[in-house]
Amino acid sequence: MDVERTPIWIMRQAGRYLPEYRAVRAKSDFLTMCKTPELAAEVTIQPVDLVGVDAAILFSDILVIPEAMGMHLEMNEGKGPVFPNPIRTIDDAKKLKDIDPAKELKYVLDAVALTKKNLNNRVPLIGFSGSPWTLLTYMVEGKGSKNFSEVKKLIYNNPDLAHAILDKLANTIADYLSAKIEAGCNAVQIFDTWGGILSQKDFEEFSLQYVEKIISQIKRKDEPVIFFAKGVHYNLSKLASIGADVLGLDWTMDLGKVRKEVGDKVALQGNLDPTVLYANKNYIKEAVIDVLTSFGKGNGHVFNLGHGVLPDIDPENVKALVQFVKKESVSFHRGDAEIN
Amino acid sequence: MDVERTPIWIMRQAGRYLPEYRAVRAKSDFLTMCKTPELAAEVTIQPVDLVGVDAAILFSDILVIPEAMGMHLEMNEGKGPVFPNPIRTIDDAKKLKDIDPAKELKYVLDAVALTKKNLNNRVPLIGFSGSPWTLLTYMVEGKGSKNFSEVKKLIYNNPDLAHAILDKLANTIADYLSAKIEAGCNAVQIFDTWGGILSQKDFEEFSLQYVEKIISQIKRKDEPVIFFAKGVHYNLSKLASIGADVLGLDWTMDLGKVRKEVGDKVALQGNLDPTVLYANKNYIKEAVIDVLTSFGKGNGHVFNLGHGVLPDIDPENVKALVQFVKKESVSFHRGDAEIN
Repeated sequence: MDVERTPIWIMRQAGRYLPEYRAVRAKSDFLTMCKTPELAAEVTIQPVDLVGVDAAILFSDILVIPEAMGMHLEMNEGKGPVFPNPIRTIDDAKKLKDIDPAKELKYVLDAVALTKKNLNNRVPLIGFSGSPWTLLTYMVEGKGSKNFSEVKKLIYNNPDLAHAILDKLANTIADYLSAKIEAGCNAVQIFDTWGGILSQKDFEEFSLQYVEKIISQIKRKDEPVIFFAKGVHYNLSKLASIGADVLGLDWTMDLGKVRKEVGDKVALQGNLDPTVLYANKNYIKEAVIDVLTSFGKGNGHVFNLGHGVLPDIDPENVKALVQFVKKESVSFHRGDAEIN
Repeated sequence: MDVERTPIWIMRQAGRYLPEYRAVRAKSDFLTMCKTPELAAEVTIQPVDLVGVDAAILFSDILVIPEAMGMHLEMNEGKGPVFPNPIRTIDDAKKLKDIDPAKELKYVLDAVALTKKNLNNRVPLIGFSGSPWTLLTYMVEGKGSKNFSEVKKLIYNNPDLAHAILDKLANTIADYLSAKIEAGCNAVQIFDTWGGILSQKDFEEFSLQYVEKIISQIKRKDEPVIFFAKGVHYNLSKLASIGADVLGLDWTMDLGKVRKEVGDKVALQGNLDPTVLYANKNYIKEAVIDVLTSFGKGNGHVFNLGHGVLPDIDPENVKALVQFVKKESVSFHRGDAEIN
């Protein structure tokens, strides 16, 4: 299908950079927002109305899965999420409950249904999950980490235990994303925030194969799956071959070069440096044109940042970004495409 | 020149993982160690004696340059270095002193001379500096950063000021490394720890051109220059063309693939994942063989970790690593080389 312009959504578009989000957040803590469908739906729809993005992204957190599996989760203001009792041993891992997302994570599915109803088909709704590796990293480290020593110790010294947890997470995530689609999501994204801390060999063994497994198990009709592995800069043609329809790229990647490598196997999503939104509007406009030019003419590009929008960005700059993409991308969809 | 085996040194080899280092450190704070030639020489030589590495790396810190330029530097235990008064404005930048490393950083040169004397030609001595971009990042952020917002604001909103500081740093670093060579260093390494946070375009504009400038200005005979840009995974052939003799690579890179791309323009240094040293000795040995196999047969490889050795690594594992490289690499230097 030919499109007239490049669509755009923004990672963390429902977030603190919006005063309207902060107003909701001021009355409720973060996890309560995730667990209250009315609040989750409200902040999910805010950027559609306020910023003009082409998709709504269900407000949630990737750590709701390990929390539902029984891990106590603390969301400390300004310090990031903490699991006070991280997984380090087989006994810790045995305590992880088998969950049915339709029950233990019903609040997410209720938020999907309510958001769909309130969106009234204005834009599609995307649901997301962390990858098994990224969830394992948080579950084992327990908090933010610089060197990821604990999870690396686990995979080097007890790979069987790591694989057992990753496999359980993959099955749970597949069920979770299937349930989101059944509840109304029009697409799903799998984030591998921490794939980039692994060597190429370890990435394939401890992350990629589980993402492939999830994608093969998701029950879907034509709902696309987006896979974003931040910092994973190698073997893009392999990443494009695991069943995902769209590959997300961070801002260190060359969109045009990746497009040449993967051809039309997948669409590409990205990849403006999120900090460019600190610049003035002229700079942002030129940077938008650079990204569009790098991808080149034709379909198969979803505009996004290369990572989430930062909390201290001026919302006016985010609005300007969306408008620049909507306007400047039109000429990239006229005439002959370079590929396709 | 054909070598019989692959040489090895280790980033941060003079460091906290060694009890003998911690014994010196217990009696003296970090900056005092940097500024006292006897202490710097002592810990510099420790890993040569204790671990068996093939080069000594002068114990120092990349932030001694901005400190010498007048920025107050605090080394807080466990929290990393802090500049309480970071550079944010042109007035801040104007306060940076022009320095002559032979005067303001004479203590480093004295440490070089003393280390050379005490080493007595057993192994070569490598001196290092941060790249202009990496120093600017610390000088502007003032402390550890997740998103590097302040330095990104500077380059997007006041690029002229950023370039003025980077140029001044490049000249100072060239003088500093020239003075180190004159004092006895047999090679120098330029670390670009934070090049990888930039887009490809920004990396070339704000980092690479200044490293190239430094290398062109260093006064040297046959002393090699090593350039290590962590996280910079693109345009390796360009990185190999700026005058460096050796290119350092982090553990996410494929040594063999990079070798094919750059040919014999530069030697390659790296790139074992530092966290592999948490594994058992058999695992470490296999991982060493993987790295050697990835580079392939022939000369042009300096073994190293893909980043610094971590403080809680068992020194026995570091010794084992060095022995494995010394033994296992011999077969890669027999018979025909795949390249050269």
